[in-house]
Amino acid sequence: MSISIELIQKLASIVGDKYVFTDLETRIQYGHDETEDLSFPPGVVVKPANAREIAAIMKLANQFYTSVVPIGGQTGLSGGALCVLEGIGLSTERLNSILEIDEKNLQVITEPGVITQVLREAVAQKGLFYPVDPSSMGSCFIGGNLAENSGGARAVKYGVTKDYVLNLEVVLPNGEIIWTGANTLKNATGYNLTQLFVGSEGTLGIITKAVLKLLPKVEHNILMLVPFYEAGQACEAVSAIFKSGVTPSALEFMERDAIDWSLKYVEGINIVVKPEHQAHLLIEVDGNYPEILMLEAEKIMHTLENFSIDEILFADTEEQKNTLWKMRRSVAEAVKAHSIYKEEDTVVPRYELPVLLAGIKEIGKQYGFKTVCYGHAGDGNLHVNIIKGEMSVSDWNLKIPQGIRAIFNLTVGLKGTLSGEHGIGLVQKDYMDIAFNKMQLEIMEQIKYIFDPNNIMNPRKILPDIY
Amino acid sequence: MSISIELIQKLASIVGDKYVFTDLETRIQYGHDETEDLSFPPGVVVKPANAREIAAIMKLANQFYTSVVPIGGQTGLSGGALCVLEGIGLSTERLNSILEIDEKNLQVITEPGVITQVLREAVAQKGLFYPVDPSSMGSCFIGGNLAENSGGARAVKYGVTKDYVLNLEVVLPNGEIIWTGANTLKNATGYNLTQLFVGSEGTLGIITKAVLKLLPKVEHNILMLVPFYEAGQACEAVSAIFKSGVTPSALEFMERDAIDWSLKYVEGINIVVKPEHQAHLLIEVDGNYPEILMLEAEKIMHTLENFSIDEILFADTEEQKNTLWKMRRSVAEAVKAHSIYKEEDTVVPRYELPVLLAGIKEIGKQYGFKTVCYGHAGDGNLHVNIIKGEMSVSDWNLKIPQGIRAIFNLTVGLKGTLSGEHGIGLVQKDYMDIAFNKMQLEIMEQIKYIFDPNNIMNPRKILPDIY
Repeated sequence: MSISIELIQKLASIVGDKYVFTDLETRIQYGHDETEDLSFPPGVVVKPANAREIAAIMKLANQFYTSVVPIGGQTGLSGGALCVLEGIGLSTERLNSILEIDEKNLQVITEPGVITQVLREAVAQKGLFYPVDPSSMGSCFIGGNLAENSGGARAVKYGVTKDYVLNLEVVLPNGEIIWTGANTLKNATGYNLTQLFVGSEGTLGIITKAVLKLLPKVEHNILMLVPFYEAGQACEAVSAIFKSGVTPSALEFMERDAIDWSLKYVEGINIVVKPEHQAHLLIEVDGNYPEILMLEAEKIMHTLENFSIDEILFADTEEQKNTLWKMRRSVAEAVKAHSIYKEEDTVVPRYELPVLLAGIKEIGKQYGFKTVCYGHAGDGNLHVNIIKGEMSVSDWNLKIPQGIRAIFNLTVGLKGTLSGEHGIGLVQKDYMDIAFNKMQLEIMEQIKYIFDPNNIMNPRKILPDIY
Repeated sequence: MSISIELIQKLASIVGDKYVFTDLETRIQYGHDETEDLSFPPGVVVKPANAREIAAIMKLANQFYTSVVPIGGQTGLSGGALCVLEGIGLSTERLNSILEIDEKNLQVITEPGVITQVLREAVAQKGLFYPVDPSSMGSCFIGGNLAENSGGARAVKYGVTKDYVLNLEVVLPNGEIIWTGANTLKNATGYNLTQLFVGSEGTLGIITKAVLKLLPKVEHNILMLVPFYEAGQACEAVSAIFKSGVTPSALEFMERDAIDWSLKYVEGINIVVKPEHQAHLLIEVDGNYPEILMLEAEKIMHTLENFSIDEILFADTEEQKNTLWKMRRSVAEAVKAHSIYKEEDTVVPRYELPVLLAGIKEIGKQYGFKTVCYGHAGDGNLHVNIIKGEMSVSDWNLKIPQGIRAIFNLTVGLKGTLSGEHGIGLVQKDYMDIAFNKMQLEIMEQIKYIFDPNNIMNPRKILPDIY
């Protein structure tokens, strides 16, 4: 869909000349996120300053039947921000103010273009805590987190993005601006439009303000790295820890390869991984009372005695904690730096994790591919990186989709689903029939139609192309 | 809408003769909930056994253009279960099995006709905790809690019904049966149909199974009753307690009249309320470590030193705790037993509570009515009972709707909304224009239309009649 001179002129009249970009370099720069090596440059990049300008852009886009894709921090892992029909790439980077940290009500009102880590640090300075911490939090936008319903390592105790959203200001595809709810902790007033927008991946509108719930700051934590001799045992230990009555603030799984690749990729990490370690759990407990944390850590150690583990590493200093987290957070980047790959975001009920892991390895053998698995084991959320490595291009193109289908069939068979926190976006949409039947998909398609009858708002995402 | 013999015969062929009731007594029995003294008997009462039978009933209802209202424990406070068009009253009382308590995944799969307290006790026996505790939990159904997104006293720490719902089986108005999501803690797969059904008050379908998240049991708590000399100060103390870093597991407000009426209504409560006590806070902290609870209770007491309070009563025994809770939970019934009244369910950001309370009293003076206020202060959720007392019928009918409108205008002006946990149902729908504009209401109306084009599923609820 090429962009006419007329449309560009009209866009410029809304946002100003200097915020409209048609040069190839800028278009390419905004044409990717972190999904594989995909590149779908928009026809034009616009950088509006506020909801009013975004509303005018949406009205224009409807007149011109041109697609609009909201672009945030470009860290997405399902291709949600890719401009598959070219069209208008709408960057939210100028809506980057934290509007109010409301210490009286433990809330923050923010624009979508604020980096998640910046938001976390700003509220921390007031003694408050925004717990959602996707691995990309140093560069992802809060708007993208809302659109994808992002999780992170602390979700196991504190929940995901959706659990912190009280109210959203949204520019609808027709250019109307609405609030979805109220700034209250409880709300039983009409259909839950707020939760309809959270996780809708920019297909129903553009979030321009968010009212988020905050918690009081948590003062202390204990972090430990536990080496296992068998990966399956690490998965089994996860449920056992919860059964003991402890809710860790993080419970991350990395199989051997994940940690190896990360150690190669990140400089300056000084951790000894013995050849016989097949997987690790990174376990954190947090709270305000150090003596209770010690008790909980002891409970966890007691539970782990029933498993075949090597010596537990306790992080002594903030620096060591940061190093362990950096190692965990760098796995995806490390894999990406070493091979073409695809990343799936399977999620199952926690106890099914060992079955899922074993099944994925079996499917890999069957279809001839290697996987690196890691993720938020406490949530049953296993990231599966499928490595191209030495696979032929034709095998990669033909067999991998079949293999992914087999993985998702297994996942859904275990009462799980396709994505825990990355969204469906572009690259998982052709597998939606595994999780949903025709009726369910039709309902979603009709919801989309209510908001966006011309199908200009981030089209060709989430739903299979037949819809 | 009268029910034809043909329809009754067909209903009987689905559920069996003995589960179809056309006698006036049964119809009247199922024609009310706990909303004021309203009575809207269905034309026929049916008691299906399972989702399959409900699906057949829905198909039939579409053929006959007859309304179907799902009826649960009949404890609703917004008239959501009232059969305003007569039609079919569909009781879920036979879907009353807890299907599985999954200790490995900390989940429970339940049918909708299970009483909330029964569910809580069943999971407690396995060492698990379902925290949602509406005041009516001894008789309300979990299905009704889901439909209304019910809260309760522990919502302030543990959240409301929506925060525990992972997946729902729903019979749609067209008779199709779908699941809304997956049995996972995280889910970023398509639009959030689960949260669209939670709180939709039976207008989009009938929930026939729910997969709910559970927590590990919490072992200990401390409960205290704090008398204040000024009601406004009690409201102010609420925010101060949170600011001190303590998150109580309950923080309930009762103004003087609420406690007086309750003490008159409930027998055997031996609590001394002095004439100068104008309001009380009932405060609970819970956790697994008694010494920490003591610390938190001390922090609260320290905070309360800044307010003008009388001596704090600590509940020493389980019996005394039960008595205090009974007193709190009986306020609505007590008021109901003494006068015709209307109950509103205002909710604002927590810090605005003193402003809301003062405003409500002012509005009462202006329109000539008395209110009794109490509720979940920690959530900013204030129940407002408007008492008829000696008011003339014409004043009651003319002035009260104006007064309620003024109260809701105030509430929404404070960034709050109409209902925190009771829903909109029948009796609040004419005030929806205060919380939502035309665009927002149209979106809701179109969502309703997707699911229920013939408008047979609990019609004339939530949305104003013009929709």
